[in-house]
Amino acid sequence: MPLPDINRICVVLVSTRNPLNIGAAARAMSNFGIRNLRLVKPFDPGFREARSAVGAAATLQDARIFASVAEAVADCTLVIGTTGGRDRHLDNSLRRLQDAAPLVKKETAHGNVAILFGSEKRGLSNDDLTRCHWLLHIPAQEDHLSMNLGQAAAVCLYEISRHIGVTHSQTSQPDQPTPAITEEIDRLAAVWFETLFASGYVKPGAGAITEEKLRRMVRRMNLSTPDTEVWMGMLRQVLWKLNH
Amino acid sequence: MPLPDINRICVVLVSTRNPLNIGAAARAMSNFGIRNLRLVKPFDPGFREARSAVGAAATLQDARIFASVAEAVADCTLVIGTTGGRDRHLDNSLRRLQDAAPLVKKETAHGNVAILFGSEKRGLSNDDLTRCHWLLHIPAQEDHLSMNLGQAAAVCLYEISRHIGVTHSQTSQPDQPTPAITEEIDRLAAVWFETLFASGYVKPGAGAITEEKLRRMVRRMNLSTPDTEVWMGMLRQVLWKLNH
Repeated sequence: MPLPDINRICVVLVSTRNPLNIGAAARAMSNFGIRNLRLVKPFDPGFREARSAVGAAATLQDARIFASVAEAVADCTLVIGTTGGRDRHLDNSLRRLQDAAPLVKKETAHGNVAILFGSEKRGLSNDDLTRCHWLLHIPAQEDHLSMNLGQAAAVCLYEISRHIGVTHSQTSQPDQPTPAITEEIDRLAAVWFETLFASGYVKPGAGAITEEKLRRMVRRMNLSTPDTEVWMGMLRQVLWKLNH
Repeated sequence: MPLPDINRICVVLVSTRNPLNIGAAARAMSNFGIRNLRLVKPFDPGFREARSAVGAAATLQDARIFASVAEAVADCTLVIGTTGGRDRHLDNSLRRLQDAAPLVKKETAHGNVAILFGSEKRGLSNDDLTRCHWLLHIPAQEDHLSMNLGQAAAVCLYEISRHIGVTHSQTSQPDQPTPAITEEIDRLAAVWFETLFASGYVKPGAGAITEEKLRRMVRRMNLSTPDTEVWMGMLRQVLWKLNH
């Protein structure tokens, strides 16, 4: 059975404004042995020189830049959003960090895991949240939930690396099929949307809401790659027929 | 029996150079419900205005200044030093953070606990170490042990407050929707099958195998009842369109 692999974790910083926070996150990553840093639309192109990245220059140099969250997490099978708040994300379930860490560990045995941190001011957008399988929060004081980005990253990576670092004897499980990566899910949702449009289910004008809703529904299906391929084949045929 | 009391914990920052780090430590304290900040010989007297103390102005204002570690910890029954290194403190026993936290919790039932953080460059001095009952370290990568002060404080206080478990807001989860019952799943699979037949995906003769396979696939989706209804509505429209 495959073992958990910390190299399958990537930290995704979305629209971070302050390059010192990017450097601080990189430093925490180095402290806890996580190398894969991805940046979505960083505000300041000078982030690679952030002085706060003490001992983490390599992590910062190797950071990859993406134009969207969708592209940044395309090869991931589990996408987790971090949030300080509690009540606004009704569509995503919310887990405490200590409950989330074992799930991250488990997933790294077979797929890539993305941990998203939103911008300092606004956190993750609603559109970013539709890319997330679920959310995690660091339990903090009700009257002071807002954490500094670098500190939140350090706490998350500490807890996750602590879980992965513990070597439990593995219990054998039947071979699970490979979970679908985000890119596959998004492609499936897109073909579904096209099909619904061709069928008249989606009315012109109501497109954006339906597409987002659809993406969430498809994500909730917890599809494997083989199943995704079968669904795609079916839908393409249905779509072809609708258009002819 | 007296209960653990998080108000018995104090954070002692020794000879901190950068006031931003003092502010960051204060912010992490506020996040995790710890109010008692003590400073031994802070380098910069302007620390009370540190911008990094977001939401922690009161903690910073109430911070007490001492001329020595001895005075700062005079009313404490347990004094713990934090360290990044491993091998230089032969006289003090060294515990991992996760092993230290339960001992901190236990002690706060009857006495004050001081957690010391040394200066950014040199850590705690040998003289400071003689004041400590024992040391704690955050398990980190061998080749990158040095953590940022604000991040180290955040990680320590997260772990300790998690063990003490007081006043943490409850994790809220959105109400889990009812899982679909078999009947609903089968009905959905049947409509799917009809749709695939109408589209030409299912060839006459291959029907039985496909229908069984389809039912398995739909079952693997782990649908809720509300989601099942939405899928049904979509499929019925697609089917209607295919037949007209």
